[in-house]
Amino acid sequence: MRVGRLFGVGIGPGDPELLTVKATRVIAEAPVVAFFAKAGRRGNARGIVDGWLKPAHIELPLYYPMTTESHFDDPPYREALAQFYEESAAAIAVHLEAGRDVALLSEGDPLFYGSFMHLFVRLRERFAVTIVPGVSSVCGAWGAAAAPMTWGDDSLVVLPATLSLDELTRRLALADAAVIMKIGRNFSRVREALAKAGMAERAIYVERATMVGESVMPLCVKSDEAAPYFSMILVPGRGRRP
Amino acid sequence: MRVGRLFGVGIGPGDPELLTVKATRVIAEAPVVAFFAKAGRRGNARGIVDGWLKPAHIELPLYYPMTTESHFDDPPYREALAQFYEESAAAIAVHLEAGRDVALLSEGDPLFYGSFMHLFVRLRERFAVTIVPGVSSVCGAWGAAAAPMTWGDDSLVVLPATLSLDELTRRLALADAAVIMKIGRNFSRVREALAKAGMAERAIYVERATMVGESVMPLCVKSDEAAPYFSMILVPGRGRRP
Repeated sequence: MRVGRLFGVGIGPGDPELLTVKATRVIAEAPVVAFFAKAGRRGNARGIVDGWLKPAHIELPLYYPMTTESHFDDPPYREALAQFYEESAAAIAVHLEAGRDVALLSEGDPLFYGSFMHLFVRLRERFAVTIVPGVSSVCGAWGAAAAPMTWGDDSLVVLPATLSLDELTRRLALADAAVIMKIGRNFSRVREALAKAGMAERAIYVERATMVGESVMPLCVKSDEAAPYFSMILVPGRGRRP
Repeated sequence: MRVGRLFGVGIGPGDPELLTVKATRVIAEAPVVAFFAKAGRRGNARGIVDGWLKPAHIELPLYYPMTTESHFDDPPYREALAQFYEESAAAIAVHLEAGRDVALLSEGDPLFYGSFMHLFVRLRERFAVTIVPGVSSVCGAWGAAAAPMTWGDDSLVVLPATLSLDELTRRLALADAAVIMKIGRNFSRVREALAKAGMAERAIYVERATMVGESVMPLCVKSDEAAPYFSMILVPGRGRRP
């Protein structure tokens, strides 16, 4: 019997029109569509593809076992996550074993900070997998800001805001352009690192890029420190411009 | 009279199915489609969108004045490029002034090393511009390699191979994951920098990702030093994996 194929489908930064043609085709052809969601929610990924699903689709929501993010080094949190990924992979494997292709949705691009990867590494030895690249969250953010990011020989760093002040500053100092992700409660430290690296003046704060409630402003005019999960800070490059 | 709107349209890494739904709609609705091409060639961008163009489209090819890349610091080269961008912006402005929307194609994402940006900065004061983000060349490359790139709190650097050995090594040493672009004649220096940074063993060489002639191999098995323009070296991150 034919086993199914797993598709890791990038669905882009939020705007349903930013799915690729390939993503819409793969979703249309797959009998099973799987996606991550917070417990008790429909999930952001499910919302993005709403217009691309048909009644005949078998939906496989994968609910995270916790609603707030704990510190990763906390062993019970880590164990709960590992168990969640194991169970999710098993739930997908049931469909694949039965010969049904599965489109596993991934916000942005599937191989760039995607939860998809945790299931991919658990399933790729047993099943054929096709990656469908997507418009990444960072492209969505600098597109929303209409900010040309990298010119000529500019280098770019993508940094999680969870790094220490020293580590952030050291990495920013060696870059021409930068994206800082996972701002959340780290906002004031990120602002300080950008100031130390001489980048604060050209930094741009972007929230919910390409989604309802999108907001873009120069970092220097942002007066509060509230920064939700879907926020980023961009530092455009200034490379050669003939 | 209504003036036209300029669209900076990311058309993805090469596979025509990796245009976004929005890109295909914008192209279908725009009377004028502009694209860069080498003199005497149809151009890679034009080839990617071939199936998305209609006979009614006005095509506006923008031919680079030189076929081989000179050193950027060469003043005549720089001046020729500046003049080319001025003339290209003027050619687009003619259509916009006449009320015709223009879709200016950009391989990958329009704000990530795109020639689009040189026309964008020349036209954005005078005309309304909409950015349509695309699947970037780097997402295309790690998708082709099926290589999960960034996990958890991994940081990523994108570096041009044109940097010196010391600069490459210093930046790689501070990164968890890396992409090196514009390999070309810099291949042996890049390989040396990766070895010094302890990254050579997990590096992946990718050529013509998502296009005809796609090729992926571990860097350590690549025996020659030939690396065309559409090649990259990837160093996947190894961050937390519950």
